[in-house]
Order: sequence, then C-alpha cells, then structure tokens
Amino acid sequence: MDVMEAAAAAEAAGRSIVHMEVGQPGTGAPAAALERLGREMSAGPLGYSVARGIPELRARIARHYGEAHDVDLDPNRVIVTAGASGAFLLAFSALFDTGARVGLGEPCYPSYRQILKALDMVPVGIPTGLETRMQPVAAHVAEYDLAGLLVASPANPTGTMLGRDDLASLSDACRAGGAALISDEIYHGLTYGTRAVSALEVTDEVYVINSFSKYFSMTGWRVGWMVVPENHVRVVERLAQNMFICPTHASQRLALAAFDCREALDANVAVYAENRRLMLERLPRAGFDRIAPPDGAFYIYADVSAHTDDSIAFAREILEEAGVAVTPGVDFDPQRGRQWLRFSYAQSTAAITEGLDRLERFLAVRSAAE
Amino acid sequence: MDVMEAAAAAEAAGRSIVHMEVGQPGTGAPAAALERLGREMSAGPLGYSVARGIPELRARIARHYGEAHDVDLDPNRVIVTAGASGAFLLAFSALFDTGARVGLGEPCYPSYRQILKALDMVPVGIPTGLETRMQPVAAHVAEYDLAGLLVASPANPTGTMLGRDDLASLSDACRAGGAALISDEIYHGLTYGTRAVSALEVTDEVYVINSFSKYFSMTGWRVGWMVVPENHVRVVERLAQNMFICPTHASQRLALAAFDCREALDANVAVYAENRRLMLERLPRAGFDRIAPPDGAFYIYADVSAHTDDSIAFAREILEEAGVAVTPGVDFDPQRGRQWLRFSYAQSTAAITEGLDRLERFLAVRSAAE
Repeated sequence: MDVMEAAAAAEAAGRSIVHMEVGQPGTGAPAAALERLGREMSAGPLGYSVARGIPELRARIARHYGEAHDVDLDPNRVIVTAGASGAFLLAFSALFDTGARVGLGEPCYPSYRQILKALDMVPVGIPTGLETRMQPVAAHVAEYDLAGLLVASPANPTGTMLGRDDLASLSDACRAGGAALISDEIYHGLTYGTRAVSALEVTDEVYVINSFSKYFSMTGWRVGWMVVPENHVRVVERLAQNMFICPTHASQRLALAAFDCREALDANVAVYAENRRLMLERLPRAGFDRIAPPDGAFYIYADVSAHTDDSIAFAREILEEAGVAVTPGVDFDPQRGRQWLRFSYAQSTAAITEGLDRLERFLAVRSAAE
Repeated sequence: MDVMEAAAAAEAAGRSIVHMEVGQPGTGAPAAALERLGREMSAGPLGYSVARGIPELRARIARHYGEAHDVDLDPNRVIVTAGASGAFLLAFSALFDTGARVGLGEPCYPSYRQILKALDMVPVGIPTGLETRMQPVAAHVAEYDLAGLLVASPANPTGTMLGRDDLASLSDACRAGGAALISDEIYHGLTYGTRAVSALEVTDEVYVINSFSKYFSMTGWRVGWMVVPENHVRVVERLAQNMFICPTHASQRLALAAFDCREALDANVAVYAENRRLMLERLPRAGFDRIAPPDGAFYIYADVSAHTDDSIAFAREILEEAGVAVTPGVDFDPQRGRQWLRFSYAQSTAAITEGLDRLERFLAVRSAAE
C-alpha cells in the first residue's frame, strides 16, 4: 500500500509512472455484461437477494465446474460472496475457533494474516522455497500442528500452481491431521499453457474460494464465490445472512452476464500472455534472473538479493529513478521478503513494454555506477 | 427469515400475500442516480477504490452532517462501508476484544447478536419497556458491566427514537464507564414530524453507523458509512483494507448520485407517512392497540399478548388465514418477543391498505370464533 500511495503521489506531481505494483486488471467488466446490467437496473429494484446469492448465478457457477474441471457440483454447495474477501471472513468464521492455528505458505497474500488476526485466530507462516515451487507440502500439516491450511494456486505473489497430486497429498494430510483445507483459486483462468486444477477435483472436504475480480475483470464489483462441503452450507448461510445480508445484487447480475462474455475475457488473457512472454524474455536480461515458476496469475516474483537486502528501499529507488512502481516482497513474506520483489503485468502491453525499457535502463545505469 | 420463506412458498403456490414482514423499501434506487451510474459504468473500469471509499462521497457525507445536523464534520472521519453490515464488522473488530460484553437494548435487530457471537464477543441483552420507549438508559452501562453499548434511533423493530438528552446521558454514562458507544442511525431520514438526532450532535466519542439502504432506497447495493473518532481512522482503515478491500465501487458512485435525488427520495417518505397514518388509524381498530411509539423507520411493533403467547404460531396463522406476512417478535427479543409482532409499512399504499383490510377481517372472524 505504501508503494501505491507513493506512486499516486508521484503521479499527482506530474511524473509518468508505470504500474507494475497493482493487483487488478487494467480492464473493466466486459462491455456486453455491463450493457445487460444497465437494462436490468432500470427494469427492477435489485433489492436484497437471498444471503447465498441469486439461484441462477449459483447454478451457473456449479455448471462451470462441470465445464472446466469435469466435476459434477450440486449448486446447493455454492455460496456467492462479497468478493473473495467476504469468502475468507465466512470461511474462517465457520471453520475455526479463537486461537486456531491456520497455516499459510509464505510468501502469500498479506490479508490472509490480517483477517485471521482480526478474528483472533493465529496465522502460522510456513516458509517455502523454490524446491517446492514456493508452496506448502503435506508434511507441514503435522509439523506445524495446524487446525487449518490455506493454499493458493495460482498463488499471489508467485504465480506458482499446485498440481493434482500436490492437492491430493495436501488434502490427505489435512484429513489425517484433522485440519480444514481452504483452497484459494481466485487466479483460475489466468494460466498460460498448463490448466489450473481445482481442489474439488480431488476432494469434497474443502472450502474452495474464487472470485469474479481477476479472470472476469470485475474487481470493484466485489463479488466472488465459495464452494463448501454439503454439511457446512447451513452454517455458512446463517453467517452470511448476519454478516453481509447479501452480496451486491447488481454485481451478482453482472457476474451472471459475464459468463457469456468468454471471448472478451479470453482476449484479456491473451494480453497477459503476451505481457508475460515479454517479462520472461526481458526481466532476466535486465538482471532479474532468479524467479519463481510463473505458472499463472499476472505476477512475477523475483529474487533480487543480487541487488539489495532491503526490498522496500529498492522499490522506492526503482519508483524514484525508473518511474516504475513494484511491490517489495516484505508485503508477502515479513522475513525473507527483504530480498524479493513482485512485478505485476496486469496492465496494457504498451505499459509493460515501457516499464521493461525503464527497468533495463535503470539496472544498466545502476550496475555501471557500482 | 422463516416467515419470508413461508411467504415465498405461499406465493409460489399461487396465493396473494401482502408483505408486511420485509425490512426494505419496495422502491429501488432513484432513477436519475441509476442513469448517471449507467453512464459512468461505460466510461471507466470502476475497479477497486481506496479502502475508505471514494473521496467525493466521503466529502458529500460529511457535508450532509452540516446540512441535517449542524455538525461540522471532517471528511477524514468518514469511512464508506459494505452496507451497515460491513460497518458493524469493522466497528466491533476495531473496538472490542474477545469476550467483550456489548449491550443491546432488547428488542433489537437480530444480526447485532449474531455478528458479535461470530466475533467471539458477548451480546448482552437489556430488556427495555414502553416506559423508556423501548430504549436502553444511562444506568444500564454500569448495571450490566458493559465494554460497549449499541443503540439504534429510529430503532428496528420498534421505530422509537432517542432524543438529544437521551443520547447525551447515554454518551456520558459510556464515557464514565469506559464503554464504547455505537449509534445505529440507518433509519435516519425516515421520520414523521420529529427530527432524528445524530449522536454526533452530542459527542465525537462515538461510532455512528448509517446506510444508503433505507432513506436512499438502495438495499441491494450494499453501501453504508461509518463516522469514527479521529484517532480511530487509521485502525479502521487497515481493517477495511484487509477485510473488504473496498465497498462496491459502482454502489459508491450511485450513492453519490443519490444525494442529488432528494425529491424522489422524499416522495418515498411521503408514501411511508401515508402508510403509517393508515396503520395507526386502522391497526388499533382491528385489535392491535398496544404499540411502541412509532417515531420513525417503517415499522409498527405491537404487543399482541391479548391474542397469543406464541408469536411464531400467530404469525403463521396470519399468513395462512389472512395472507399477510408479518414478523414474530422473537426474532428481535428471544424472551418477551413471544407476545409481540412487527408490521412493516415499506410497501405501496395500495398494498398496505389491502393488508389492513385482510388483518381486520382476520381478527373479526377470529374473535367471533372465540
């Protein structure tokens, strides 16, 4: 957040900044979906929906698991949520008591930790390395004495994925250890060659969390979903009723319409694919050559220990000298993140090309000065 | 909720049901505001906003306190939230630790209790009677050993209000007892002759919660706001960032536009005023003659002990025999609510008139049979 504020301040002062720090698409919701919502907005009041979300959307999401994952899913198990954020609040509240130890592979999305703390649960950071694609492994469940394990695939900030066997062994270890498994799949759909596996392909004993923010390009509409075991539906529904009443109704209508806009959405992914190709070609050439396997999402997580052991200062230097905003690794990994940076390629290809030009010049000048 | 489900089932089976159970306006957002949002939706992506909400909306809300309450409010103290529900989650998380005792005047909105429980806090029900307009009083703070007190004015389910002196003495008692004061003002704007006082008129040491759902008629858009003491802004902002990222951006734009639609919104209030006049004239004549002072909101809370000591069975009977859905008091007051019903008059005047006709016939037949 400090990077975003500094970048905003620099722009307000008239500087040109390339945004490689952002965690959201540069695009908005699909135009055809917005048009449909515009018509629906004038047709009816769009008041409260039922807490679990409108039935048409829940049915469409269930069908999606058949289409994309060959999983026959009962729509009854789908809960539409106020973004993935709302899903995390519901999942943690439904699954864990005060003081519960919940494992997070580090680096990870920082709000996991903060939401758990706000609910008086204990986030347990599990350091992960390149040897496990920066993902937790089955042995961690017992080793860290966990009541729950949260995994993300593709992950933020690394973009790395868990394969079917990885997910199966993590699921087995959770079942054996009496730990709840939560699978964050919000970057599904943003993959480049290798299909993302859903935890639902290997188990029903899991909370799967997804979102319309990334592939569907609807961040500001705050709508996501969660699939829960059948015997958890009632408790989650009650929590949702009390904590949220319902997700934004208009956003639910828009999400339903967005399922019919695959062509526009896949065109966004084609832009990310080209951006990723440019990043993987040019970042190493510039001097950022040690990176996590960039399977999916729109991030590159790079080990910058050759250049710094203070990623915050380094990010500030890159912003000031190169006019490129990037995110220091400490946001995702308080310990080892001092030696890592996250580069986002969610903007236009022109912006990414300009950003890479600036980074190359910056590192060339910097190493000449050393 | 059971009433709503039963009413929906009866309608699905082809019966005509008058909805006096609903807690939301029958109207949607103002048409002019929806038109403006339609244009803004096609003009830009409406991605994440900052966590506290868009600055224009926060400034407009602050100005509103000057206009309606003669309070000079720093926009910095305004946090836009995912409905009042989001505000409650933030307020409770920011103010209270696990196990904190939070006082609620009973009867009250049932989700207060459930959200507090979900956060491992202790809701403390304070029975209130007609002698205090069914509102808590200053002495309760010490009597119940409270870490916090939540008041609502106009209240749900009663519609009763707290005057300036009431709020001042509650605020003094909270300060003296080291208890946090939270003032739920979501029914402000829905008053009939007597102005609703904001807790901000008597103290800055309060969390004031409001919403665009009721007066602004935007329930399904899930947007509200909270005013917090200046030294609480940073902690609430951080919680909001982690727990919600931001409120729905489109809803924030719509809320800003709705401030320019006072004429349409006041026309809704004129309908409620006429509905209320009809209810107050005809409910007592029909046999519901002991009611809480109906200062504001769109509810009548009636003591039905002359007819039943099981409000759930009585509500079911009214639904089945009269085709009118009403809410049993136990939803708001687990103990004494067996002898109370809540009637909502948020629908059209035609619907309310039809509902009153049905209730009159029902009670006439019922007393003839006794």
